[in-house]
Amino acid sequence: MRLSRYFLPVLKETPAEAQIVSHRLMLRAGMLRQEAAGIYAWLPLGFRVLRKIEQIVREEMDRAGAVELLMPTLQLADLWRESGRYEDYGAEMLRITDRHERELLYGPTNEEMITEIFRAYVRSYKALPKNLYHIQWKFRDEQRPRFGVMRGREFLMKDAYSFDLDETGAKAAYNRMFVAYLRCFKRMGLSAIPMKAESGPIGGELSHEFIVLAQTGESGVFLDRRILDLPIPGEDVDYDGDLEPVVTAWTSRFYAATEDVHDAARFAETPEGERVTARGIEVGQTFFFGDKYSKPMKAVVSGPDGVERPVQMGSYGVGISRLLGAIIEASHDEAGIIWPDAVAPFGVGIISLRPGDALVDAACESAYAALTSAGLEPLYDETDERPGGKFAAMDLIGLPWQLIIGPRGLAEGNVELKRRASGERRSLPLDQALAAITG
Amino acid sequence: MRLSRYFLPVLKETPAEAQIVSHRLMLRAGMLRQEAAGIYAWLPLGFRVLRKIEQIVREEMDRAGAVELLMPTLQLADLWRESGRYEDYGAEMLRITDRHERELLYGPTNEEMITEIFRAYVRSYKALPKNLYHIQWKFRDEQRPRFGVMRGREFLMKDAYSFDLDETGAKAAYNRMFVAYLRCFKRMGLSAIPMKAESGPIGGELSHEFIVLAQTGESGVFLDRRILDLPIPGEDVDYDGDLEPVVTAWTSRFYAATEDVHDAARFAETPEGERVTARGIEVGQTFFFGDKYSKPMKAVVSGPDGVERPVQMGSYGVGISRLLGAIIEASHDEAGIIWPDAVAPFGVGIISLRPGDALVDAACESAYAALTSAGLEPLYDETDERPGGKFAAMDLIGLPWQLIIGPRGLAEGNVELKRRASGERRSLPLDQALAAITG
Repeated sequence: MRLSRYFLPVLKETPAEAQIVSHRLMLRAGMLRQEAAGIYAWLPLGFRVLRKIEQIVREEMDRAGAVELLMPTLQLADLWRESGRYEDYGAEMLRITDRHERELLYGPTNEEMITEIFRAYVRSYKALPKNLYHIQWKFRDEQRPRFGVMRGREFLMKDAYSFDLDETGAKAAYNRMFVAYLRCFKRMGLSAIPMKAESGPIGGELSHEFIVLAQTGESGVFLDRRILDLPIPGEDVDYDGDLEPVVTAWTSRFYAATEDVHDAARFAETPEGERVTARGIEVGQTFFFGDKYSKPMKAVVSGPDGVERPVQMGSYGVGISRLLGAIIEASHDEAGIIWPDAVAPFGVGIISLRPGDALVDAACESAYAALTSAGLEPLYDETDERPGGKFAAMDLIGLPWQLIIGPRGLAEGNVELKRRASGERRSLPLDQALAAITG
Repeated sequence: MRLSRYFLPVLKETPAEAQIVSHRLMLRAGMLRQEAAGIYAWLPLGFRVLRKIEQIVREEMDRAGAVELLMPTLQLADLWRESGRYEDYGAEMLRITDRHERELLYGPTNEEMITEIFRAYVRSYKALPKNLYHIQWKFRDEQRPRFGVMRGREFLMKDAYSFDLDETGAKAAYNRMFVAYLRCFKRMGLSAIPMKAESGPIGGELSHEFIVLAQTGESGVFLDRRILDLPIPGEDVDYDGDLEPVVTAWTSRFYAATEDVHDAARFAETPEGERVTARGIEVGQTFFFGDKYSKPMKAVVSGPDGVERPVQMGSYGVGISRLLGAIIEASHDEAGIIWPDAVAPFGVGIISLRPGDALVDAACESAYAALTSAGLEPLYDETDERPGGKFAAMDLIGLPWQLIIGPRGLAEGNVELKRRASGERRSLPLDQALAAITG
């Protein structure tokens, strides 16, 4: 992408509305614009990261055998009356009346609707196990929306729902999602730690929150440092195999808990040097809730014995839009964002120090073509802005690499290559710089 | 994808609710489920087609220089008061009140919001031209939603907005979108004909509807048959060049008009043998409306002369979810849907006539692996369903190719290859069948 043709409204001043660093940086980097309290437009740069995160989650869901569909944003109130949650949900549910006075709501989650879909088509255990997921905008009418995408009202979430004949099957389905979540967050460059959680309004007996450590986290967390070194299955993981050993290692070998369920006595058993008290950001949650929805909503399947029983369900959420905030909270410095490679909006920024200079233009164009065809998605700053402004903007938006091309370097046969994360700069010939990036 | 692991609830009976063929076929093929009047869940098969259509539109928008962002579904009522449309829009606008009694609405279109975004960041002609687009769910509270996705309430639309300093620039921007639309619809296997249109509630002077011919179309159309043979620019089209000759050829060489603006006298000038009276489905619309929004909303840019003036705008919509219906209306037979290759949910269906037979399983697995690695996205029916049911379901869901593998054929060294569109069947060795499919 050539910057002159892009839409990247970088701000020099920090907007007063932003209280936390991810919100400040997203506004300054031209990623986000508030359109109403807790409701944002995703400007092109922010949108690209959103799509990258979404795609990683999609790939890992698919790999784990989940099937994607898409439920609408609006739902019938009557559907939520079937489960009993319509009245329970309170003021966070955005209730809507249409022109014919029908009661609708903007879905905050989809347990009811997916149960309704399942019961309409599935009657036999032979169709099981099934895991259906979607990635869709949801709405929670927060009393006090704040912290940008971390606590917005309209937010993008991946929610998956598993259906099994019995608890054994449901536990295997839970384990598949647990492992898929470990993989998702790792691919995004995050250390996300599963912690036993209360299940809250979703209900159920077994639940884990996946927590990213960050000083600005919303909740206190307590953990054994050694949990950070546990291995995460590779992409060859066998989702048809037994994943219980992986889940057991992550859930019972070392202590990890949010403050809600913290057990000081058990934490004291962790060697003192390994005890970590920190703050964390929840980026995903898994729930097993059995027949909480299938029973009142009569989603039953017949087993091999011909007997009908309510299907055993679980649900599994990832906060896609919230993850942008979490990643920035976990990866930034004074100059701006430092995107992990896998979610960076562009792989490399090309900075021309003298647009219009024939040699500089030729070197930039050649780098742009080579990086584009290598799939690196370069952002090429060929504008008339001064070098200082270009450097600051490129650091702010946090692309993994910067390739800086000017007449003085070229006279010596060199360009400059900067790695954003380490700040390391090297002068080297263009072909070597390209080889280092495409590496 | 292995069918046993997929979620494809094909129906034998046609649901009574469906009045037109695309709606019937989408319900029967397990693509769609109604969740409220005009509000649908996209089941996995429907979702895959939706994503393919969306991706074609995205690629053509990007090629034409438009930049993608994403605006939220909910908007502030006050924003629409700035343009004067809040009161004008009438009962089709879904008005919402949140917990703090703030007035919101579910966006039916985004002229106001994109103008607000533009004016917040752009002040100078140097940033122009710009074209910003998004692909987002929208809501129109239709009095009588019907015809499935053709006239739903919650629908997916691509809407692009162009910004230029003057009318000359705006006309060039209009032409780029016009050509991109020709390319989009052609890639989807459609003949979509641009017709001069009234601009309706969007406003403006210059507008074209892109109309797909179909017997079930919502509006009458009149055209010169020769317009169907006009060339469409290839993917090497130069969007920085002069596209006026292309647009002129499509808009003034041959007659084409919807009934709203039909001019019988001018139509009579078309040679009688070339006159076509038909019905059509609108799948896209382009508008140039100048300063209709920029003036009241004060989105001004300074020109090279330093004088500020309202930016010249256009908007360009494609009904992504509606296109599924339009494509099916234009491409089906008695047995079901016939997907054009570019939008087919899977490229080929593999039908095992005897799962469990070692030779059949081995041939199917080998075909499945080969087609998967060739990027053909096979759907492999390895279920215990009877052959007749498998054939009917595969015809119904309309994949371009069927590869039928059974013990009798294999004994002779053959499999059967069927092309869905022509119905042509051939017996041939598996490697030749794979070669024919991967072409």
